[in-house]
Amino acid sequence: MRLKFPKLIPREERFFDMFTELAGLAVEAATELTKLVNDIENASRLARTIKDIEHRADDITHGIIDNLNRSFVTPIERGDIHAMACALDEVIDYIEVAGHKISLYELDGVRQEVVVIAELILASTKTVEKAVRSLRRFPDVKPHLLEINRLEEEADHICRNALANLLNNETDAVTIIKWKEIIEILEGATDRCEDVANIVDGVIVKNA
Amino acid sequence: MRLKFPKLIPREERFFDMFTELAGLAVEAATELTKLVNDIENASRLARTIKDIEHRADDITHGIIDNLNRSFVTPIERGDIHAMACALDEVIDYIEVAGHKISLYELDGVRQEVVVIAELILASTKTVEKAVRSLRRFPDVKPHLLEINRLEEEADHICRNALANLLNNETDAVTIIKWKEIIEILEGATDRCEDVANIVDGVIVKNA
Amino acid sequence: MRLKFPKLIPREERFFDMFTELAGLAVEAATELTKLVNDIENASRLARTIKDIEHRADDITHGIIDNLNRSFVTPIERGDIHAMACALDEVIDYIEVAGHKISLYELDGVRQEVVVIAELILASTKTVEKAVRSLRRFPDVKPHLLEINRLEEEADHICRNALANLLNNETDAVTIIKWKEIIEILEGATDRCEDVANIVDGVIVKNA
Repeated sequence: MRLKFPKLIPREERFFDMFTELAGLAVEAATELTKLVNDIENASRLARTIKDIEHRADDITHGIIDNLNRSFVTPIERGDIHAMACALDEVIDYIEVAGHKISLYELDGVRQEVVVIAELILASTKTVEKAVRSLRRFPDVKPHLLEINRLEEEADHICRNALANLLNNETDAVTIIKWKEIIEILEGATDRCEDVANIVDGVIVKNA
Repeated sequence: MRLKFPKLIPREERFFDMFTELAGLAVEAATELTKLVNDIENASRLARTIKDIEHRADDITHGIIDNLNRSFVTPIERGDIHAMACALDEVIDYIEVAGHKISLYELDGVRQEVVVIAELILASTKTVEKAVRSLRRFPDVKPHLLEINRLEEEADHICRNALANLLNNETDAVTIIKWKEIIEILEGATDRCEDVANIVDGVIVKNA
Repeated sequence: MRLKFPKLIPREERFFDMFTELAGLAVEAATELTKLVNDIENASRLARTIKDIEHRADDITHGIIDNLNRSFVTPIERGDIHAMACALDEVIDYIEVAGHKISLYELDGVRQEVVVIAELILASTKTVEKAVRSLRRFPDVKPHLLEINRLEEEADHICRNALANLLNNETDAVTIIKWKEIIEILEGATDRCEDVANIVDGVIVKNA
């Protein structure tokens, strides 16, 4: 019976590779988002690039779930694999929606705080990628998780102030409505990165 | 001991009947919603009809959970029964809130896109009902799940464009705020239908 | 082996104490919120007081999760302990965000409905505290859960009408946007109290 394992385990290890691939796409999407907020003229084109990345992420997510359904042995709990794939997919979804909204809504330039938040999202996705890459070696993961939490808190702080600034100083109500929605979606993207960190944290605890 | 089963199983089968009943109420609520968006003069009366449907759905949902707590054997996993009841209930909640908001907010006529979205919600609830009805025969369910996902994507696309159209072309900010909220709730209703589809999909996988 | 239990069990009982502490902080935060909405001049100071309470709640929540990871025996299911800690923490988070927004957004006075909703939140947190305190004696809990649900329905009703009143009668769009956001967050706080009630209800069912 034990002879089976050398064959099974490598196959199941693929989950880690697929997570890393998904996290890599999150970094790609966030990179395009930072380009987009700095180059609003080309927002439509860049939003389409992010949409393509999101489609590739969807395929990988479905691939992970298909693999999960066919696997007898999994390296971490099935529920955690499912949750991790969905959470990584959600990070990319939020980035896609934000980019698409910025391209769809007719806006005069980009608010400075939005550029800052986009950079925090990029930093957060890069740290998520590092955390996912080091999932096999627990002691290396923890500092990345702390950094994701720190970035989420920073983004939360900046978003709250950006909204207050928008609501207290912008006079055009329609402009307020547009940017308020976009800022809230961007904040959601960093919350989704934190979701990934929480799932990883749970995995570490159970396997420590 | 085995003699008990012929008695137990029929009782547990009731879960499927109750799901079908709940899904039927979702179709009823969505039908009233399409009437409401086409007959804004009678919005208050039709919103009350939807409220009554929602109350009946609440009773069935509580009935499912009570039954669950008293059942030793369940035809599918307990967690899935609970999640399915809640997800079906949520579909109806979203429809109720949308209808109520349309009746409460003083609006000049209904936006055309909202009529289209209401019809997509109706189509989606009808497909949810078909999926739930065929839960006992897995091969028949899959096409319905794909259709629910397709309808959700179509609704997502229409809602995004409806919001962009609203924000870029409507000049009265208060009108924008009212319709934006309503459109987002309607989009939420199709998301909740997709939640049901995802739960059903999980049930199929585990029992395949 | 059994000799270990007398030592283990008392330690695990600490979870109930920590839940009670968290619920107590929710009452404290809600108390400060009612002060804040009645004393808008001192909103910044009171919002900082709530922020301090939230920090203490975060520490307790992390303490519960750390304890959970080190415990072999838990008085109720691990998942329920985790969910309960997070739900109680969320109640306080919503109160903190609402208070902070009221202090950040430059507002002319406080809307009367908001004072009413803050009082409902306080009533709800007090009932949550009673429910959590009586977690060890199930028959005493049920009336509290029903009361939390009743308060949530009342808050939902008042919030819907407050929003309709705001949207139909307020003429300044920016004022609408500010209060709409605050009212929705306050409504969220009562929803989170209901989440706690639902988790407690599930615990009772499983241990009845």
